[in-house]
Amino acid sequence: MTQQVWRFVVEWMVQPFEAHMHGVKRVLYSGETKFQKVDIVETFSFGKCLFLDGKLQSSEYDERVYHEALVHPAMVTHPEPRRVLIIGGGEGATAREVLRYSTVEQVVMVDIDRELVELCKRYMPEWNRGAFEDPRLKLVFEDGRKYVEDGYEKFDVIIIDLTDPIPGTPSVLLYTKEFYELVRRRLSGDGVVVTQATSLRYTLDTFAMIRNALASVFPIARPYVAPITSFISLWGFVLASVSRDPLFVRAEEIKARLTSMNEALAFYDEEVHRYLFHLPRFIRGRIELMKDIPTDSNPAFSQP
Amino acid sequence: MTQQVWRFVVEWMVQPFEAHMHGVKRVLYSGETKFQKVDIVETFSFGKCLFLDGKLQSSEYDERVYHEALVHPAMVTHPEPRRVLIIGGGEGATAREVLRYSTVEQVVMVDIDRELVELCKRYMPEWNRGAFEDPRLKLVFEDGRKYVEDGYEKFDVIIIDLTDPIPGTPSVLLYTKEFYELVRRRLSGDGVVVTQATSLRYTLDTFAMIRNALASVFPIARPYVAPITSFISLWGFVLASVSRDPLFVRAEEIKARLTSMNEALAFYDEEVHRYLFHLPRFIRGRIELMKDIPTDSNPAFSQP
Amino acid sequence: MTQQVWRFVVEWMVQPFEAHMHGVKRVLYSGETKFQKVDIVETFSFGKCLFLDGKLQSSEYDERVYHEALVHPAMVTHPEPRRVLIIGGGEGATAREVLRYSTVEQVVMVDIDRELVELCKRYMPEWNRGAFEDPRLKLVFEDGRKYVEDGYEKFDVIIIDLTDPIPGTPSVLLYTKEFYELVRRRLSGDGVVVTQATSLRYTLDTFAMIRNALASVFPIARPYVAPITSFISLWGFVLASVSRDPLFVRAEEIKARLTSMNEALAFYDEEVHRYLFHLPRFIRGRIELMKDIPTDSNPAFSQP
Amino acid sequence: MTQQVWRFVVEWMVQPFEAHMHGVKRVLYSGETKFQKVDIVETFSFGKCLFLDGKLQSSEYDERVYHEALVHPAMVTHPEPRRVLIIGGGEGATAREVLRYSTVEQVVMVDIDRELVELCKRYMPEWNRGAFEDPRLKLVFEDGRKYVEDGYEKFDVIIIDLTDPIPGTPSVLLYTKEFYELVRRRLSGDGVVVTQATSLRYTLDTFAMIRNALASVFPIARPYVAPITSFISLWGFVLASVSRDPLFVRAEEIKARLTSMNEALAFYDEEVHRYLFHLPRFIRGRIELMKDIPTDSNPAFSQP
Repeated sequence: MTQQVWRFVVEWMVQPFEAHMHGVKRVLYSGETKFQKVDIVETFSFGKCLFLDGKLQSSEYDERVYHEALVHPAMVTHPEPRRVLIIGGGEGATAREVLRYSTVEQVVMVDIDRELVELCKRYMPEWNRGAFEDPRLKLVFEDGRKYVEDGYEKFDVIIIDLTDPIPGTPSVLLYTKEFYELVRRRLSGDGVVVTQATSLRYTLDTFAMIRNALASVFPIARPYVAPITSFISLWGFVLASVSRDPLFVRAEEIKARLTSMNEALAFYDEEVHRYLFHLPRFIRGRIELMKDIPTDSNPAFSQP
Repeated sequence: MTQQVWRFVVEWMVQPFEAHMHGVKRVLYSGETKFQKVDIVETFSFGKCLFLDGKLQSSEYDERVYHEALVHPAMVTHPEPRRVLIIGGGEGATAREVLRYSTVEQVVMVDIDRELVELCKRYMPEWNRGAFEDPRLKLVFEDGRKYVEDGYEKFDVIIIDLTDPIPGTPSVLLYTKEFYELVRRRLSGDGVVVTQATSLRYTLDTFAMIRNALASVFPIARPYVAPITSFISLWGFVLASVSRDPLFVRAEEIKARLTSMNEALAFYDEEVHRYLFHLPRFIRGRIELMKDIPTDSNPAFSQP
Repeated sequence: MTQQVWRFVVEWMVQPFEAHMHGVKRVLYSGETKFQKVDIVETFSFGKCLFLDGKLQSSEYDERVYHEALVHPAMVTHPEPRRVLIIGGGEGATAREVLRYSTVEQVVMVDIDRELVELCKRYMPEWNRGAFEDPRLKLVFEDGRKYVEDGYEKFDVIIIDLTDPIPGTPSVLLYTKEFYELVRRRLSGDGVVVTQATSLRYTLDTFAMIRNALASVFPIARPYVAPITSFISLWGFVLASVSRDPLFVRAEEIKARLTSMNEALAFYDEEVHRYLFHLPRFIRGRIELMKDIPTDSNPAFSQP
Repeated sequence: MTQQVWRFVVEWMVQPFEAHMHGVKRVLYSGETKFQKVDIVETFSFGKCLFLDGKLQSSEYDERVYHEALVHPAMVTHPEPRRVLIIGGGEGATAREVLRYSTVEQVVMVDIDRELVELCKRYMPEWNRGAFEDPRLKLVFEDGRKYVEDGYEKFDVIIIDLTDPIPGTPSVLLYTKEFYELVRRRLSGDGVVVTQATSLRYTLDTFAMIRNALASVFPIARPYVAPITSFISLWGFVLASVSRDPLFVRAEEIKARLTSMNEALAFYDEEVHRYLFHLPRFIRGRIELMKDIPTDSNPAFSQP
């Protein structure tokens, strides 16, 4: 008799047009925090997966591609990152990648959802791999925008690892020009900021708008892209800085930094670095037309 | 009232574990040829799509990524391709990419399924964009292996663009050591062969085995990979040759060749060329263990 | 190899909570009339099926249960039906059942959607079985409410066979007190009216409200119920009259009438008649609480 | 924002042709006993549901219809049932219905799966409503066939409430002529046996064969049918006896027995009793052709 599977996560990529049905091996957790619905599920398709409000956030299959693509281009663009701020990043995998750098002295991770972080610690230890125990990591449970607004200490690298700006969620105001101005205030002289910037398939305009917002605040703003299979899309990121340009980081420099790490990376290296910033032409053409800059009063949304 | 969609193609990625549900806008054709079930469907998710036996083969959204990744690395690796053989390639898009090169004098396209080619001509003109009318193209309806076995003329480039080696289908014997020996006999001195080589997610072992089969016949055999979003996988290819190595084609050479084309490419260029051959480490590690070489009596199958 | 099916109609019973996936054997027609989306599909589950706006209306598997349950209780409740009005009934199966009675001299069928009737004639001949050729049948393409409002001839039986009162569709105003008052004016002295009255699972309140509306206009109003498997629900109907009560029709009378027909029925007979009017207690209790009467300004909707 | 649901039980009615997708509100239990996979899930469509090996067994929405239809026709056909045997019936709802009769002195319930019974007790108390605490109930965890074969005490009523005879499961040998001969040996003089007898839509032949097997052992064997909406089918049962015929139980007798119960039934009463035994003609015709009698060496299977 053929094996049968009857429990599925039906992930609506765009409701009601397209869905991805993941056969469920085991449900590790399913519930709600104060901020979102959380499902941690072992799937046949992508191994262990975290779904927030029904959207896949991270899968065992390729979370390393996502987190390495998010973290390392910014980290190597800064000459010697000592203080790093992570906004969001509840799974702990962004912190894990940052803590690979021996120059790093302190990482502040600000996540609004304490319960989510507890759930990730408990059910997804493969993601943080000990990061939460690293004495260099300081956890703050607070709205990321408020944290940036209220404080004064500077950071060398700021990494924004949030859910998409879905209407009605707190993330919306962390993708605006005003927010990026606050971020700039918290960056040190050579500081670098990077943000995840939504799907290049479903929300190409939003990706372009996030780039525009950063480009309106920083002289250097580089959009880039990585293939995240489990998201069924090329995925967008934007890296920005007052003074540092990721296009001019030398391959030898990257290689040297990565070689000094204890454990090898799964996806990113000096060759990948160059390629990430090379948007395929069929995408480039379409985003060049987008001129809007999202602001607090007129934000970008990741709803197609 | 929300828009509702109720007709779907449920594409089982791996039955019964994972499916991709494509909302259907319009069915252009649904029927059977002598060899396979054919559905040509306009979807909300990926535009017009060709499904063979229920598996997505080509989508309007990213068929250019697939066909450019398949064709151009081989074409630029040969110094001056004049005669090209395409095995499979029913949609006409592989021929379209080959015919971009002004050096090309003749393209022979051998597809087993005449009805499929007729359907693609009629319902998917965006794929061939006039290729079937080009006087340089010669269509042959025959089993690809038989064509290679029976003839004697040599080709500069041979492009193998077939369905996956699904058990019970004719494709199985076009991914074996013996077949590649026949192919070698049909290549000119500097000849280059390239084949699609299945999914790096579902059938990584099969990908590795196809590489092994080519490496057992050709001194140079280079696996490579492109992100085909609509296949929900990084996709594998292998390029092989007696004398030419794609890793040593100079960027300026590629640039010059592409610049002379009438119309710009959507995905491939000299930067992409370098990157394609760079397998992510998390994949590399897993394929290095596979030592099997598929043969006629013990072929590789693309069934997970 | 197992047989595979990859084209489905995903019928949302209640979006997004419950769906019925019907594997598609063949699409006979898929398009839009001026009034609705029409899909005529051969399914593996229920044979040939008609979907209007994505909702199953009739299946080869059990359309006879539905149409016999709709038509015969009313027809036998009238002592000698000569003139019958059908409102809706586009498939022609309601007319088919009415025309079985040799007493019937004229049937007027008023359907708003001429194109739908043409499609049913062409693709679903098993439904009408020649009814459209019967000289006693007169087709009128007009809004049913307008037809009832504008005319004066009386009918012995009026059968209302419409889509559910889905918000935004013309059906909504054919389930109100005001409409039933118009209907009453068009009934002869012993006249009987019957209407389909939605699902007892999804829209029990709507069923109860339709009963209330008829009970507010007619001294006799009897709700009843038949098991329509393909609708995944017990299905509601209401029969009303000024003078005739279906509960007092004698079994021998029904038997005699049915015996005189050329062809035997599939579902309905004198025993079934009695049972139809017997609502299961678990449903009865819940509808007794509903006191609302739908009116033109405050209609009932079949949206859960 | 519309409410979204992304966790589903995809119940394959017939794989891969038809499925019923139940949106999941909450998973109460999901795991495996020694005998079967068990999912106890709160759905949006049918309330709390028990799935065994992916098939819906009982839903809060209409388990009463099923259990009342299974138990009461047999109980009222026996003039004074004192000792009752239930084979299967893990949820405890069959016992619940039996224990309503004040004449009943002992109920023996034999279920092969102790873990399942424990899970039902814990997660589905609405099903047994205290039955497991009733001192008249005796639980035996053993294979039902073995229990019947090994013992000697007689029962007035034997109720067989098992999963369908799916190939490879222990249920197969509890639907054969040989088994019913063993059952006959365990019945008292006026004894009555009843069994669930699979779906009239998917496995009509199996239903007919079960009837044939009972008719080959008992002079009286009456097939009957109830509408179980959540099974998307009319459902089959067969009642058999050496001497008692359910068709000749008087309505007053039934009424009197039901009236004496503490709590009213939801579905069954004296009117329903008569109707249950009235198979719709469209089903009757098709089962009359089936002459096979399932035996131990050639059993019936409920696989379409």
